[in-house]
Amino acid sequence: MAISLNKSRTIIRKALAHGRETELKPLSVIVLDSGGHVIAFEREDGAAPGRFAIAHGKAFGSIMLGMAGTAQMKRAEDQAYFMAAVNGVYGGQVIPVPGGVLVRDKRGRIVGAVGVTGDTSDNDAAAALAGIEASGLTGEI
Amino acid sequence: MAISLNKSRTIIRKALAHGRETELKPLSVIVLDSGGHVIAFEREDGAAPGRFAIAHGKAFGSIMLGMAGTAQMKRAEDQAYFMAAVNGVYGGQVIPVPGGVLVRDKRGRIVGAVGVTGDTSDNDAAAALAGIEASGLTGEI
Amino acid sequence: MAISLNKSRTIIRKALAHGRETELKPLSVIVLDSGGHVIAFEREDGAAPGRFAIAHGKAFGSIMLGMAGTAQMKRAEDQAYFMAAVNGVYGGQVIPVPGGVLVRDKRGRIVGAVGVTGDTSDNDAAAALAGIEASGLTGEI
Amino acid sequence: MAISLNKSRTIIRKALAHGRETELKPLSVIVLDSGGHVIAFEREDGAAPGRFAIAHGKAFGSIMLGMAGTAQMKRAEDQAYFMAAVNGVYGGQVIPVPGGVLVRDKRGRIVGAVGVTGDTSDNDAAAALAGIEASGLTGEI
Repeated sequence: MAISLNKSRTIIRKALAHGRETELKPLSVIVLDSGGHVIAFEREDGAAPGRFAIAHGKAFGSIMLGMAGTAQMKRAEDQAYFMAAVNGVYGGQVIPVPGGVLVRDKRGRIVGAVGVTGDTSDNDAAAALAGIEASGLTGEI
Repeated sequence: MAISLNKSRTIIRKALAHGRETELKPLSVIVLDSGGHVIAFEREDGAAPGRFAIAHGKAFGSIMLGMAGTAQMKRAEDQAYFMAAVNGVYGGQVIPVPGGVLVRDKRGRIVGAVGVTGDTSDNDAAAALAGIEASGLTGEI
Repeated sequence: MAISLNKSRTIIRKALAHGRETELKPLSVIVLDSGGHVIAFEREDGAAPGRFAIAHGKAFGSIMLGMAGTAQMKRAEDQAYFMAAVNGVYGGQVIPVPGGVLVRDKRGRIVGAVGVTGDTSDNDAAAALAGIEASGLTGEI
Repeated sequence: MAISLNKSRTIIRKALAHGRETELKPLSVIVLDSGGHVIAFEREDGAAPGRFAIAHGKAFGSIMLGMAGTAQMKRAEDQAYFMAAVNGVYGGQVIPVPGGVLVRDKRGRIVGAVGVTGDTSDNDAAAALAGIEASGLTGEI
């Protein structure tokens, strides 16, 4: 099952709403499909101009490796040269920290990933999770 | 004046609505700020996975050169080697055809660009224009 | 529906068998999923070492653009600078000639692409089609 | 002596069979020739989409340096900047961990390399070795 544009909009709106309710800094949120391709993205007013690439890098690495941001960060801390090499083969497109969140359907299959950036990595991940859960899907941070 | 996220949403929604009303193929729409950085993007269900890069390339070239898609295409037809060289200096990120539309405010200043892809280049440009006009801004195709 | 590894093997074996029966030069065959990612690849003995990249480029462009090799070639002939620019945004990974074949399921949805290289582009496409049809899927050359 | 496509198929099938017997996660297996060029690749159903690049990076580094994954990992741990620099000259295509396995013929000459990814690096290397030995060649992990 693919994430529809409608569900992607819900994920983004609810992630941004979570950021406003918990008084986070301006957020940027991306939704990728199961092949790592962009479905939708929004950057809040006041966010730095380069935030697309950070949001994308968090979500893209999650899809390519089948491993969410928290697991990627652990691997980067254990074996920095491995994650550096992984970035080489993926064209430097991987940001291995929380805020990259895998999206699974009811059967547990990966159907996409969400990337959030703007506040701390943990707050970014919480915003992503809020959006994903509001859409009826399951997030793995 | 920058294009707000709110106005960007209006541009995208109205461009997509134009596509549905005129029975175009599934569209993808991007809004860039005046520095060429992504504010928002949406890809309709059924569009090919690589459409982000095409929409981005149309809008990015418009911003970088201060020249909309129609003018870029004319230049590419007159002097193919020039647009090839332009792509060299901009890292291959420019798609010089209609559907890349400059966005101007009431004083005529460029405040961003919209890129649309999915149907013919001319139909893409018309959808972009519909979105921009619905937001109260002015488009240059 | 995704193309399974089992179906991918059938596609490759039957494409290569078609090549042997019709006395084509040594072929290389790739199967990509609907996100443009490699499922399987084989290069026959005697094929040139660089054939992976050609097979990949034919199939990858088909997926990214949602347009098979024949349509890409027409576009390249009509508007060479457009396909050159497309290659820029896709990192130079697109080979716009026949032999890149879209794979559709019974409902007409694109589920992947096959790329064949080694003989003439038209013979390459015929081999891809033979493999796809043997797997019960539908090819668009 | 080159690795034939037939032997490459045996290597891949037996490596995957080893993975199933020992209950590893879904694996991806690549076989490169002595010039570092792809002969064959298969990705099991359920493996993450980006696995081709990881399998390739493990095998490619082994061929380019004439040094298998275990030796590369030791070098990366001793001298991270060296492996980073190696990746610079090889275009970021080297993944220096076990699972990249050199393939030697009876006279001890390097005839290719196998790359396996999907489980732990050590399990990946064991699967590669099982495949290589089943083909009558010798693996160096």
